[in-house]
Amino acid sequence: MGNSQTSPDNSVGIVEQQKVTLFDSGQPLALECGQSLGPVDVAFETYGTLNANASNVIIVCHALSGNAHAAGRHKADDKKPGWWDHYIGPGKPFDTDYFFIISSNNLGGCDGTTGPSSINPETGKPFGLKFPMITIGDIARLQKALIDHLGIKKILAVAGGSMGGMIALQWVLDYPDMVHGCAIIASTPRLTAQNIAFNAVARQAIMLDPNFNNGEYYEGTDPANGLAIARMMAHITYLSEAGLDKKFGRRMQNPELTSNDFDHDFAVESYLRYQGSSFVTKFDANTYLYITKAMDQFDPFPDPETTAKRLEKVNSRIIIMSFNTDWRFDTSRSKELVKILNWHNKTVSFEEFSSHHGHDAFLMESVNYQQSLASFLLRLYQDFTDEPITSGNGST
Amino acid sequence: MGNSQTSPDNSVGIVEQQKVTLFDSGQPLALECGQSLGPVDVAFETYGTLNANASNVIIVCHALSGNAHAAGRHKADDKKPGWWDHYIGPGKPFDTDYFFIISSNNLGGCDGTTGPSSINPETGKPFGLKFPMITIGDIARLQKALIDHLGIKKILAVAGGSMGGMIALQWVLDYPDMVHGCAIIASTPRLTAQNIAFNAVARQAIMLDPNFNNGEYYEGTDPANGLAIARMMAHITYLSEAGLDKKFGRRMQNPELTSNDFDHDFAVESYLRYQGSSFVTKFDANTYLYITKAMDQFDPFPDPETTAKRLEKVNSRIIIMSFNTDWRFDTSRSKELVKILNWHNKTVSFEEFSSHHGHDAFLMESVNYQQSLASFLLRLYQDFTDEPITSGNGST
Repeated sequence: MGNSQTSPDNSVGIVEQQKVTLFDSGQPLALECGQSLGPVDVAFETYGTLNANASNVIIVCHALSGNAHAAGRHKADDKKPGWWDHYIGPGKPFDTDYFFIISSNNLGGCDGTTGPSSINPETGKPFGLKFPMITIGDIARLQKALIDHLGIKKILAVAGGSMGGMIALQWVLDYPDMVHGCAIIASTPRLTAQNIAFNAVARQAIMLDPNFNNGEYYEGTDPANGLAIARMMAHITYLSEAGLDKKFGRRMQNPELTSNDFDHDFAVESYLRYQGSSFVTKFDANTYLYITKAMDQFDPFPDPETTAKRLEKVNSRIIIMSFNTDWRFDTSRSKELVKILNWHNKTVSFEEFSSHHGHDAFLMESVNYQQSLASFLLRLYQDFTDEPITSGNGST
Repeated sequence: MGNSQTSPDNSVGIVEQQKVTLFDSGQPLALECGQSLGPVDVAFETYGTLNANASNVIIVCHALSGNAHAAGRHKADDKKPGWWDHYIGPGKPFDTDYFFIISSNNLGGCDGTTGPSSINPETGKPFGLKFPMITIGDIARLQKALIDHLGIKKILAVAGGSMGGMIALQWVLDYPDMVHGCAIIASTPRLTAQNIAFNAVARQAIMLDPNFNNGEYYEGTDPANGLAIARMMAHITYLSEAGLDKKFGRRMQNPELTSNDFDHDFAVESYLRYQGSSFVTKFDANTYLYITKAMDQFDPFPDPETTAKRLEKVNSRIIIMSFNTDWRFDTSRSKELVKILNWHNKTVSFEEFSSHHGHDAFLMESVNYQQSLASFLLRLYQDFTDEPITSGNGST
């Protein structure tokens, strides 16, 4: 059961993205809004090898701007590896010597899984705003359908950061008998008014772009300016003030005080413009609308009665992790979730890590975070599988 | 020397805005960028009465979106009074029974003082982006010219919040012999990279609006959408997360999960849209560009040598005030300024107040903040004038 693709730098190496079409016959995917979707394409990648008794499955869930490509490279000369490459690979926390990791593009996304830019079978044109409203629950439901399709019955762990943490929590709530463990990182049980406000302004920026055309821009010009503004603003909130100061401070690109030069005096301005302009080449504006709205709506514990009912059957082992400079999803949000779980006698642990990376810290290398995540996952593996840790199922 | 306009509710009552044209003959206003401006209109208001020896003058400096109308009402049925009405009036900290308060619209503004929307005498058309780059120093220099024009030689105090605090600090640095005291509230000696980043994205939103037309929109359609996005984003940063949660939380306008409804589910979304759309009816997008850039550039203490030189002659009594939930201009920024002043043996006091209003707290009613401001100003008056506090020069 060796993983022949392991490369010498602890990378999973060259990976191939797969696509499967689900809900293409019979029942379509029933959504919380009452509508349904079908067929539904799902883009996904896997890393590591499924063991004989299929007890080593980990699902990683991506955040707003992520996709199925969580680790490795598609081509040897790809500039960047997948978004969680620091954490997925041989010897890394999501250790491909032990685990079989599944990463899929979220429902509503724009990178292989059916979303607003996909063709609406009823019209033969992209859905645009005719795409149904989706929820974090719907996103988890489609992941579950993928898992069923792969013939997997038990999940060792579901893990994700930011919105990925919401999806991981949703798994624990909706499929309590299936999930042994769950890592919810830099996340929250519900968005605050401030978070909703930032999402709302981002959506306004997109919808006020004259190219938006009520979401029907696929045959014309993208609302790239609006999406760039949305991304630039969001990007500021993903970084810490200290991190920005450390990286850019007041360093100037153009120290001269000249007229008509409102956009590139300071280094941080150029950086943001680059972030905005590169984002719009790879992301769909309608997906930004749908996914931020799904995040806004996420609120699994709106009142004590619902909370008690939702948590009744939950018996997964849960770890919650936050970062001290994350102000978009502050540590207090993680603690709120810890408190809810503790009050209902769930098995929950919590750790806050130091970082100057703000919300983005969950994507960055960090020895302590890495160690805690690795320990949590190996312990799960030890407790829930029959195979001893020392031999594992790795390539060595 | 009674103030006949005092109304029963401790308001300054009905006030009239004045306008004066300076630099209309001879020397124009020399700007830091090397260019010059003339003639220059200045809109201003005064509250209270100038005493016999002109020893009771206080200048209040407005922030980014403020104007000369700091207190009272222009008409009896005005919905709102001036922006600092809580603090200016008989019995209030800027006590019109004692003080003569001068408030002028900043250079580069859009409410009576010459700015980018004013007519460029060279072309007969609005300046637009032909308006020269201005600095906080230039803004203070124009205020100084107004004071000279009014025949005033000594300033009891200069006070301002946010950018107004930067202007107040500039006064102390540039006219050290003239200014007895200074109140710098919710402000900073320099913007952080995060602050510059927020300003930069706001400017991008304006400049990417297709109606912007390189700043020449005065005969066409305003870049209202871009300006609204800029304002909405900034508005989030002026409020605290706790304040937003207290005011809106996750309250919904539209609890139904429906399609195509991306902009008014949550109450906070409607509130922000209202803030954006009302702002654009009263503010000029080019002014937003010029003034945010002046804030970005403000950095009077870039290195120890400059700092020592700039502070050499300063002998004003300075109070610095911050608010615990202000994250746009965090308390640590105020402390940075306190430290600089302390290291140079200046007379500086500092106080942090509790508030849930975030950056906007400097505009809001607060007993402790009010009391400290009042005590500081009365003490100044006592120490620097010949008139005893008990009699004052008020209307009683």
